[in-house]
Amino acid sequence: MSNNIDCVEKGPLTQDYLKKMDAYFRAANYLSAGQLYLLDNPLLREPLTMDHVKRKIVGHWGTVPGQNFIYVHLNRIIKKYDQDMIYISGPGHGGNFMVANTYLEGTYSEVYPNISQDVEGMKKLFKQFSFPCGISSHVAPETPGSINEGGELGYSLAHAFGSVFDNPDLITTCVVGDGEAETGPLATAWHSNKFLNPVKDGAVLPILHLNGYKISNPTVFARISHEEIKKFFEGCGWKPYFVEGDDPMTMHKLMAETLDTVIEEIKAIKKHAAETGDTTRPIWPMIVLRTPKGWTGPKVVDGNEIEGTFRAHQVPMSMEKPEHLEMLKEWLLSYKPEELFDEKGRLVPELAELAPKGNHRMGANPHANGGLLLRDLRLPDYRDYAVDVKAPGAIEAQDMIELGGYVRDVFKLNQENRNFRIFGPDETMSNRLGKVFEVTKRDWNNAKVDNDEFLEADGRVMDSYLSEHMCEGWLEGYLLTGRHGFFASYESFIRVVDSMVSQHAKWLKVTSELPWRQKVASLNIILSSNVWQQDHNGYTHQDPGFLDHVANKKADIVRMYLPPDSNCLLTVFNHCMRSKHYVNVMVTSKHPRPQWLTMEQAVKHCKQGIGIWDWASNDKGSEPDVVLACCGDTPTLETLAAATILHEHLPELKIRVVNVVDLMKLQPSSQHPHGLTDVEYDSLFTKDKPIIFAFHGYPTLVRELTYLRHNHNLDVHGYQEEGTITTPFDMRVQNQIDRFDLVIAAVSRIPGLGSKADYLCQLMRDKLVEHKQHIADYGVDLAEVSQWKWHSIAE
Amino acid sequence: MSNNIDCVEKGPLTQDYLKKMDAYFRAANYLSAGQLYLLDNPLLREPLTMDHVKRKIVGHWGTVPGQNFIYVHLNRIIKKYDQDMIYISGPGHGGNFMVANTYLEGTYSEVYPNISQDVEGMKKLFKQFSFPCGISSHVAPETPGSINEGGELGYSLAHAFGSVFDNPDLITTCVVGDGEAETGPLATAWHSNKFLNPVKDGAVLPILHLNGYKISNPTVFARISHEEIKKFFEGCGWKPYFVEGDDPMTMHKLMAETLDTVIEEIKAIKKHAAETGDTTRPIWPMIVLRTPKGWTGPKVVDGNEIEGTFRAHQVPMSMEKPEHLEMLKEWLLSYKPEELFDEKGRLVPELAELAPKGNHRMGANPHANGGLLLRDLRLPDYRDYAVDVKAPGAIEAQDMIELGGYVRDVFKLNQENRNFRIFGPDETMSNRLGKVFEVTKRDWNNAKVDNDEFLEADGRVMDSYLSEHMCEGWLEGYLLTGRHGFFASYESFIRVVDSMVSQHAKWLKVTSELPWRQKVASLNIILSSNVWQQDHNGYTHQDPGFLDHVANKKADIVRMYLPPDSNCLLTVFNHCMRSKHYVNVMVTSKHPRPQWLTMEQAVKHCKQGIGIWDWASNDKGSEPDVVLACCGDTPTLETLAAATILHEHLPELKIRVVNVVDLMKLQPSSQHPHGLTDVEYDSLFTKDKPIIFAFHGYPTLVRELTYLRHNHNLDVHGYQEEGTITTPFDMRVQNQIDRFDLVIAAVSRIPGLGSKADYLCQLMRDKLVEHKQHIADYGVDLAEVSQWKWHSIAE
Repeated sequence: MSNNIDCVEKGPLTQDYLKKMDAYFRAANYLSAGQLYLLDNPLLREPLTMDHVKRKIVGHWGTVPGQNFIYVHLNRIIKKYDQDMIYISGPGHGGNFMVANTYLEGTYSEVYPNISQDVEGMKKLFKQFSFPCGISSHVAPETPGSINEGGELGYSLAHAFGSVFDNPDLITTCVVGDGEAETGPLATAWHSNKFLNPVKDGAVLPILHLNGYKISNPTVFARISHEEIKKFFEGCGWKPYFVEGDDPMTMHKLMAETLDTVIEEIKAIKKHAAETGDTTRPIWPMIVLRTPKGWTGPKVVDGNEIEGTFRAHQVPMSMEKPEHLEMLKEWLLSYKPEELFDEKGRLVPELAELAPKGNHRMGANPHANGGLLLRDLRLPDYRDYAVDVKAPGAIEAQDMIELGGYVRDVFKLNQENRNFRIFGPDETMSNRLGKVFEVTKRDWNNAKVDNDEFLEADGRVMDSYLSEHMCEGWLEGYLLTGRHGFFASYESFIRVVDSMVSQHAKWLKVTSELPWRQKVASLNIILSSNVWQQDHNGYTHQDPGFLDHVANKKADIVRMYLPPDSNCLLTVFNHCMRSKHYVNVMVTSKHPRPQWLTMEQAVKHCKQGIGIWDWASNDKGSEPDVVLACCGDTPTLETLAAATILHEHLPELKIRVVNVVDLMKLQPSSQHPHGLTDVEYDSLFTKDKPIIFAFHGYPTLVRELTYLRHNHNLDVHGYQEEGTITTPFDMRVQNQIDRFDLVIAAVSRIPGLGSKADYLCQLMRDKLVEHKQHIADYGVDLAEVSQWKWHSIAE
Repeated sequence: MSNNIDCVEKGPLTQDYLKKMDAYFRAANYLSAGQLYLLDNPLLREPLTMDHVKRKIVGHWGTVPGQNFIYVHLNRIIKKYDQDMIYISGPGHGGNFMVANTYLEGTYSEVYPNISQDVEGMKKLFKQFSFPCGISSHVAPETPGSINEGGELGYSLAHAFGSVFDNPDLITTCVVGDGEAETGPLATAWHSNKFLNPVKDGAVLPILHLNGYKISNPTVFARISHEEIKKFFEGCGWKPYFVEGDDPMTMHKLMAETLDTVIEEIKAIKKHAAETGDTTRPIWPMIVLRTPKGWTGPKVVDGNEIEGTFRAHQVPMSMEKPEHLEMLKEWLLSYKPEELFDEKGRLVPELAELAPKGNHRMGANPHANGGLLLRDLRLPDYRDYAVDVKAPGAIEAQDMIELGGYVRDVFKLNQENRNFRIFGPDETMSNRLGKVFEVTKRDWNNAKVDNDEFLEADGRVMDSYLSEHMCEGWLEGYLLTGRHGFFASYESFIRVVDSMVSQHAKWLKVTSELPWRQKVASLNIILSSNVWQQDHNGYTHQDPGFLDHVANKKADIVRMYLPPDSNCLLTVFNHCMRSKHYVNVMVTSKHPRPQWLTMEQAVKHCKQGIGIWDWASNDKGSEPDVVLACCGDTPTLETLAAATILHEHLPELKIRVVNVVDLMKLQPSSQHPHGLTDVEYDSLFTKDKPIIFAFHGYPTLVRELTYLRHNHNLDVHGYQEEGTITTPFDMRVQNQIDRFDLVIAAVSRIPGLGSKADYLCQLMRDKLVEHKQHIADYGVDLAEVSQWKWHSIAE
């Protein structure tokens, strides 16, 4: 928007302007209440009858007027300062407020032309709200201008910070509900200000909306003293401004003045930082806004006080009693719609001009439809990072260290674009991505001391805060505003954000069905420090069930990869970073492991996602006696070891080794776009030969994914919730995924082996006894196991 | 413990006593370091060689000395004030500190006689730590005195508050790591003080341990100003005391004086409240303890500073370099073990007497082994709450309202024992448990206003804080200290605590294998507001996957129930409340629903857990043509409706309806103690007849649980991640679990029906079209559906 010197908002604040703002506020309140109640007669130009009213009134009113109030004030600020701003609504419901405001400013009708700015459009606007086949009652993907869904609570502030990283001109206003403020993720998110760079990032303006109540309880923040609230926020590093009251005109003046102060403070902070390069953590301003719940709505219904009480949380009144019809009419008419909308049902011009224009309207701001701004990452050629594998198993490497080199160069290539960050709860070193510190640092805008490593206010590694919620929330906000990144987590503790990831997958599913929403970069999650090797951690750190969790989400959104070595990881990672609008989960190893495939082989293998490893099989394309399938680094290692034992003792046995990288290949093609057809599946796994499947996670997942396949002669070995502090090999033994148990399983399922089978099984059981005794004595694995090397069985 | 007037701790604090405390501190540090490094030669009475040292050094040192310091000081306080106290250790690792201290005070050897208080025992103590077949490196179920595992972080403070509810004489000291303090669950838990009753509850003494670092990053709390820390805690309603420094003797004096002040303040608060009955929220004291990370350990190793830096987080040095052996020796000898342990290797008597005696030792306090204190709940006869069901479907009721009556009377019967509370994030009314407010209130110790409902400082309904983390954490702490309760949650948002519940299930599994740990009451979770009816909520509120999550845990710990009506819910709930040491998940309905079983039938049905509903079947014990199976309230309703349609159109068809209450009945008896044998399963489901299974959750779970059964002629209908704001019936249609789709599915799988089948399928498809049009027009379900009544098909 050009700097319009005629803009009235740039002049002094007048009573006339405040009155217009109040009229705009009333228009938004009218439209919000109308959405709750009306099916027809949207401007009450006919006598209101029950036929005009929805039969079932479902939705929320409590939070709505306060947010309408905020929205109109932000409109003024945007115009006054030519400010780039988006609005994140934290409270769970009240989506009608944002629909009302984006409708008033015109963006709603641009996105949904059927909901036009006239009486007919308003009627449709009202009917669709919280109505079957319509829109949801909370701010949702369908709502223009939103990147935060008002369903599950707690993530608004983290999303807000994610949106302003590397967006120096953007201010994201984040309205935090006082109910939401009680959740853990929100409670810790106040500290996000320690990770903001005043030069290179934008600003977040939190508005704690002290509405007073949750569903039927008061909120804690509303019932502690002014002094405690003030200290709390000052302790969190904020400078709180209080805007409190219930008289609209008084409140308009106070809010406008406070917003001017606050925005000018933000601008002053940024100006100082930009001019001096001083990135010292500033004390950013925020607002505590106390307004009555259900403000301006019915005061008393059926003898109960409504406005200002918990009873205003949902709808002030149901429409089961006829006398409520009159009350509804009075309430709606109290906003004086006749002054607000012209004959055609359109907002009158002198109010319409209060809204910003074009992309400065918060409903149209491209940051809130991040795909519009998305630029592909510049990615190095992953083949350049190949581990040189002369022969399968000939060398060892640490997959995550190799990946670290590639990620380092992603940082290099995108240094200028500033559109790539990585996220993790203080696990970058532990997850072996340390090479990234050759080119960037950790983001940290707090005091530093001599012994610190890799900290700076301009760091792009977001790993200096120990909260999976914050990592996930920041990343989601960063992705949804059109940038790239990934989250590297310990496998077990990604479960802390099960629900957040699920909510994000739901967001992606719904937005993928909205043509006006542009696709964003995928949510990429790397799970290292996986269940199979924990050393000094133990049972609490073992949980491979995130895969099961993600597998239940919509097939067009989720993908899961378990690369068995470094070259496969590089290939898969590169693929995921190029993809859009998926949740990609990669499970990797960080410890030294044998490397199996050359880069050329890895590319082919990962492209197929699943395949026979000829070099580890001796069936020569004929029907094998047994299929040894494996998925994940540890299962692959043990499967290959089992294959060599089987071959040594039963050289006549035809063994086929199948490795799975892309887990969803197992599912039928009818259920997942990656799934193999039954013909393809049978050609790998046969229709009836025994399959001994060593799987990284819970065995149940493989059984489920292959449920509809022909071959149920399937024995899946995986994690059984056994083992704690112990050696890597002992973990495998305790869960029967070790080579000896795999051999026993195979031999037991292959018919006709006779006494050779008995002999081999006994030998394996002896090995297991020897192992147990050895680790009890020495605490380390048998040399035979830890020094085992692959030797080919293919003749 | 009797009030021993000779107790030296009751006199003035002397320099001599402080010196003894320092010696005790050194003994604990010695034992903690010894656990990390030594295999043998525990008191260094022979020259130290590499043979005496563990080959792989795994564990943590950083947090240990600070916690040893706290422990010895709490010992003094316990003796001085005859104080009942337990210790919760929040930091993730450093379990060696608690092992060391419980060993010094004697409890460790009482629990594990093999680890005796002599040289031989000390050698075993050292070897077992973080060693295969030994104990884990964090505070764990195996650690005496612990109710909080140091694995996943964030729950210590919520556990601490759970432990003191209804324990007026108990003080739980909760050491919060500054890393842990960054997690969301911990960040919100500071506000637990608003729910503490100074008369009827005990007190929590939080000690924020400002160790300075996490894994390789500094912590935020360690790098904000003193003023910000102070304000933060004051804002959270605490009075912080600071104990900061690094000289042990100076710190001993400061800590001892501060603890005296703090304990006396707590006692004064409680005295005032007890005497006056004034429960006004007091400002409780807390301590901020700043000590160097790895305090008293090696200063510099290989040129890197260790003490006071992030490098002290794990072990100060590996033992790969020979020169480290000498450093290790010097470090260990710096604690002067020769002054601390007698010839036999036992702590010298003048130090041993610093520990409290008997159950006042924190390792022996029965609150930390809550099963010792567990008293059965007094439960009313659930049959007295029966819904009078004259015939299946003859009346409607709301299952959760009926349950509310029963729960109300559980409160009544246990009023004096004060050992039962319920937990939920402001959802008691929404989940229809409102009858409980006839006898108790919500726990709330904050300002109140006239319009509030059911708030009081002595309430037993813990639903006034909007955080699933807090509910779950409080409840876990309450259960682990020997009391009873349940958590009622919206089904979808229980996923917020997926990982917490998983960690608790792991705790139960491990403790069930420890003979000295007594069983505690089960963790009972009721999921209402389930996926199938959300009204104004929508897609974000739909997630039945908690069942899948729990199903992956150990079979001896987890149970899942889906009662189809009120009488079944009452039966199941009563069973769960009597059970011990399980995680019981109950999925229920809260909306008006037809009632199917008399109480007598319900008791029988729930006892079996699964069964043929004869009154809904017409196979008369012969082999049916189709099995209609159902699990969950909505699936049961639609299955019964489908049965009536099938019967009406195809009266010759032999239909069997099987209802599942106890989900784990589906799993083979070899895998779950509740599982049916194959013979039992086949007698219900047949070996090959089509099963149309309508399931509450994701279809994958039923397929998985029945994977090893004979009959794979199975078509599972369940939630497919479809539908948002819509009517209850439309949700079913969108996920194909509605009666019409079930009929189509059945008819399609039954061979030999010919043209009748085609006709019926077409009819059903017409119904689906009619339904779609109807809800688009009116937003409510077809009258045919919403007014449908069951009529018997059994002749």
